[in-house]
Amino acid sequence: MTYTEIDYTVADGIATITLDRPDRLNAFTLVMRGELIDAFDRADADDDVRVVVVTGRGRAFCAGADLERGGSTFDYKAARDMFGGEDTFEDGAPRDGGGTVALRIARSLKPVIGAINGPAVGVGVTMTLPMDIRLAAEGARFGFVFTRRGIVTEAASSWFLPRIVGIAQAMEWAATGRVFDAQEALRGRLVSYVHPAGELLDAAYALAGEIAANTSAVAVAAVRRLMWSGLGASSPWDAHRADSRLMYTLGSAPDAAEGVTSFLEKRPAEFPMRVSRDLPAEVPDWPLP
Amino acid sequence: MTYTEIDYTVADGIATITLDRPDRLNAFTLVMRGELIDAFDRADADDDVRVVVVTGRGRAFCAGADLERGGSTFDYKAARDMFGGEDTFEDGAPRDGGGTVALRIARSLKPVIGAINGPAVGVGVTMTLPMDIRLAAEGARFGFVFTRRGIVTEAASSWFLPRIVGIAQAMEWAATGRVFDAQEALRGRLVSYVHPAGELLDAAYALAGEIAANTSAVAVAAVRRLMWSGLGASSPWDAHRADSRLMYTLGSAPDAAEGVTSFLEKRPAEFPMRVSRDLPAEVPDWPLP
Amino acid sequence: MTYTEIDYTVADGIATITLDRPDRLNAFTLVMRGELIDAFDRADADDDVRVVVVTGRGRAFCAGADLERGGSTFDYKAARDMFGGEDTFEDGAPRDGGGTVALRIARSLKPVIGAINGPAVGVGVTMTLPMDIRLAAEGARFGFVFTRRGIVTEAASSWFLPRIVGIAQAMEWAATGRVFDAQEALRGRLVSYVHPAGELLDAAYALAGEIAANTSAVAVAAVRRLMWSGLGASSPWDAHRADSRLMYTLGSAPDAAEGVTSFLEKRPAEFPMRVSRDLPAEVPDWPLP
Repeated sequence: MTYTEIDYTVADGIATITLDRPDRLNAFTLVMRGELIDAFDRADADDDVRVVVVTGRGRAFCAGADLERGGSTFDYKAARDMFGGEDTFEDGAPRDGGGTVALRIARSLKPVIGAINGPAVGVGVTMTLPMDIRLAAEGARFGFVFTRRGIVTEAASSWFLPRIVGIAQAMEWAATGRVFDAQEALRGRLVSYVHPAGELLDAAYALAGEIAANTSAVAVAAVRRLMWSGLGASSPWDAHRADSRLMYTLGSAPDAAEGVTSFLEKRPAEFPMRVSRDLPAEVPDWPLP
Repeated sequence: MTYTEIDYTVADGIATITLDRPDRLNAFTLVMRGELIDAFDRADADDDVRVVVVTGRGRAFCAGADLERGGSTFDYKAARDMFGGEDTFEDGAPRDGGGTVALRIARSLKPVIGAINGPAVGVGVTMTLPMDIRLAAEGARFGFVFTRRGIVTEAASSWFLPRIVGIAQAMEWAATGRVFDAQEALRGRLVSYVHPAGELLDAAYALAGEIAANTSAVAVAAVRRLMWSGLGASSPWDAHRADSRLMYTLGSAPDAAEGVTSFLEKRPAEFPMRVSRDLPAEVPDWPLP
Repeated sequence: MTYTEIDYTVADGIATITLDRPDRLNAFTLVMRGELIDAFDRADADDDVRVVVVTGRGRAFCAGADLERGGSTFDYKAARDMFGGEDTFEDGAPRDGGGTVALRIARSLKPVIGAINGPAVGVGVTMTLPMDIRLAAEGARFGFVFTRRGIVTEAASSWFLPRIVGIAQAMEWAATGRVFDAQEALRGRLVSYVHPAGELLDAAYALAGEIAANTSAVAVAAVRRLMWSGLGASSPWDAHRADSRLMYTLGSAPDAAEGVTSFLEKRPAEFPMRVSRDLPAEVPDWPLP
């Protein structure tokens, strides 16, 4: 697949996905949706990718849905021909496009870092919620503006957002539809760190490098799936069952032997296992819709 | 219904519910319970109400259950005649009174702002947990004092409180039964903002006005229900299913057309839809007990 | 049971459990696992224990799993003879050892305070997650180092950790496997307070004393179980059902009469009920694995 609305590059164990419609402030389209899903499939399948960083080209991260269709932008009933097959539920209703991206990111086998370089509005911010860690440039701005457009928070953000920032902060932002700055995002725990614009990508790469340099890729993939599914599990006993099985499988596998041995020998670990080949069947996944 | 223990007024799109037993520090009674539930029904049914603000008359917000029955205050077995019908479970046990109010607030179609002007203790604080945003006056005080009275945290606060403030903070407050001030409430994220007493209601109205002035009432109602039910959903796929259906329905409705068009035309939106008439059937609700 | 790897003492209503292998930095073993579970059983059964404080002997809290078996430390398949009976799932996979401790702590009828005096790494930190409140000494260090050892976060921490610190912080710590200091733990809300090393135990005892001096032991036990199971409940209606039944039972019991009467008489309460004898059947418990 050749991408036209995103850019995808791999270097030093890190895949960088860049939203790449700078003349439209990287506004989200169905094409971008498909390319993002494909890019995450590609990153998962590529053992040279340990971490994914997502950022935007130019001055914006993502201005939200492209509004070039004007007042009928969200009229999916009039535009049912845009959808079909896997993109619709059994009753013919189309799956929300931001949601298909968000849920693909939620299942990523590689950690995902959002490097939010500028405005992130509407689906531009909700698509970042299933990323593991969000960093923002000082000039970034955020808005859950859906209620100002007469629509609802999408991309499964009613599940993600109150878990990330708390229900009071989630409702304040969603009910007002307010656009707010990076400092408010930091205080509200939507982003973990704020950096000067010129240092944002370096900070994201430093964090990615800390993961890539020190850890087992298979262990990280398993932990990522455990942690996100654990966030939805109703009981810690479910988590106990899942991680007991993974401790049993991975504890006797080569990465565990190397992890402990290298630590005792005070040398960097050289983990032999590969996600593409060695991911245990016990790693949890979400039930797909 | 004429209210005797609360006051209910509507102005500028905002319903103000005032706990109104100042001589008893607005202590909670079964009468107040019924009036609060009725007032939230009324606010939901009135399209002139966009936001609900709850506050207390005089120097207290709510001192908790009225203790005029002394040591038998919570002896519902001796006072079963107080209950009946919808107020009891199938085994005859009465539904907790604070819980019936809290769960009614949780289902509100209008955002709810707590303006906590003074002491909020026992059910006086647990009733605020299903409100969306809590503001406190500088002199407000809080106490989950149940364990000091030999009873348990009620009003479904074992669901709300650890989600709002985290389980460590929830257990510290609930296990000690400590009374604490507004700054501790702010640090612990029980309240979003602290204001001088004389500015509290204005701050609540300013926040309410930010919602009322800029957003679609139908979208806000749908988002409120999505977000609170999303907080309880076990999987983001459940949220995806719910918000896909609402995007499908509301995306082709008049408020979405006006929301996008007014934005592109850089003018205030005039949303035509009304909650009383136009709320989609897809808006989620909790399964009632 | 005589303990060889922990110490257990009771004074002033507080049980202190001390991890007691200072020459091995209190590293975790199967023996320690069994002793910890026994100690929590003992504390629950002893009405003289109102609160449990857990700390470590010497300069560490707990350095994690004892690595004396080197690269085969986590190879439970090669060491299946270590397990059996209740320690295995129905398919013969052993239950994760840290998880059996963590889930026993989660069910504790007495509040549990972690006094983290030094390094808490691997299972040394995950075992503290089901404790109610964590205090740290200034020099304490923390690490979810599992991914650096080629294994997964265990002890049901994929359920506990994202609920305590949020998913972004949880993933940052788990994916990097970073070792971090007490201030980072405080900022990330992993610990509630940081104290100079010499004041740590006194601070833990002061908090424990605040609980022991003022509250009903039965009410605290019921609230602890309500709050932790409420954290896993999918709906506030489940919580409403649970706490309505407990309000009905405990509201007519002697501690409630004493709690209200003593408050109205402005004197300390003398609660007559005992956890060993008077715990209502309505107090929730987790479904065991």
